Amino acid sequence: MQTARTGDRWMLRLEEQEEVIETLSEFAHREGIRAGAVVAGIGQVRRATIGYWDGSRYLPQELTVPHEVLGLTGSIAQADGAPSLHLHLTAAGPDYRAVGGHLLRASVGVLMEIVVEAFPGRAFGRPMSESVGLRRLDLEPGADV
Amino acid sequence: MQTARTGDRWMLRLEEQEEVIETLSEFAHREGIRAGAVVAGIGQVRRATIGYWDGSRYLPQELTVPHEVLGLTGSIAQADGAPSLHLHLTAAGPDYRAVGGHLLRASVGVLMEIVVEAFPGRAFGRPMSESVGLRRLDLEPGADV
Amino acid sequence: MQTARTGDRWMLRLEEQEEVIETLSEFAHREGIRAGAVVAGIGQVRRATIGYWDGSRYLPQELTVPHEVLGLTGSIAQADGAPSLHLHLTAAGPDYRAVGGHLLRASVGVLMEIVVEAFPGRAFGRPMSESVGLRRLDLEPGADV
Repeated sequence: MQTARTGDRWMLRLEEQEEVIETLSEFAHREGIRAGAVVAGIGQVRRATIGYWDGSRYLPQELTVPHEVLGLTGSIAQADGAPSLHLHLTAAGPDYRAVGGHLLRASVGVLMEIVVEAFPGRAFGRPMSESVGLRRLDLEPGADV
Repeated sequence: MQTARTGDRWMLRLEEQEEVIETLSEFAHREGIRAGAVVAGIGQVRRATIGYWDGSRYLPQELTVPHEVLGLTGSIAQADGAPSLHLHLTAAGPDYRAVGGHLLRASVGVLMEIVVEAFPGRAFGRPMSESVGLRRLDLEPGADV
Repeated sequence: MQTARTGDRWMLRLEEQEEVIETLSEFAHREGIRAGAVVAGIGQVRRATIGYWDGSRYLPQELTVPHEVLGLTGSIAQADGAPSLHLHLTAAGPDYRAVGGHLLRASVGVLMEIVVEAFPGRAFGRPMSESVGLRRLDLEPGADV
């Protein structure tokens, strides 16, 4: 991965076959980003798994052919002392029709360009919400994130 | 709603059942944002109404089941002395297929994370364009916004 | 086109019938943006051509009726001494279904609002990758961009 930084903003270029979530998590860890946003992402995924929340779990759907990435956005927080990414993917295959959902997994195709913006001096949390059944972003966590 | 600010950038976490447009309008009013952009938004809507401009009006379409929010972007201006938001929504239901359009209304589901960036010292307008038949963003309005 | 700038961030309002790629390229040239991101874009396209990369070329698809623009994101680099834009479009027609891909061409409809963020002091390149067969973003180019 290549990175370019100006102030609190990064452009990232991922490499073919890199895993998106793992690569972004390692980037956030290395740069010390404990609060941030993924504000844009385009390129191509070779494979991806997206999820739809049915009220109790994410129903997975695999994209098994390369898709153009139309959108990759979300938040960077901390959970259990490590980066916690929440990303949604919009993508289109050979029929140009867009599909999307909660990003469960994706591997990079021929290109992937992602814009990250940090909130320096802050740490967002992502504690489990027992009432909802999933981890929710917490912008004002305690000191335990 | 929770908010976290660094410089001219905010991360917002909306709460379940909040109305997206009203909540963002109140946020913009409270923070004095007279010129801004909604650059990213993910989460889930419980219900939403999107529109397609047919040349004279927005034809509405209701999304009546929860949808994953794949994109929520737009601009913050002023009209008639109050915040004027122009937002487009991309969302996917249980079949993962993305739909979208001009956001007419949406209520938050289990999660909603939105990134807002302000243009401090500026005020964007949104006057009615008689020739087009809708309000258009004006980046260089007079002093009347 | 109208433009409003604060720091390294611009809001742009394009005018009806303007070509999106040409207009953004001229803007980047005029403002001296040699490294940047298009982080959001909404509005309407009158016509557009999107592409799907099949491994050797972009298969084109024309959108021949006005579509709501749900997403317009990408990167600004330099190639052969001129701005090089890489953009992906997500759009929806009268059936609200989203389609998208690599943006090959688009002309503006009744509205178009675009947010650009620059990486001042940097120049991104976009050299041809012989192994992949297309131009790839290079965040650390030599002095020849």
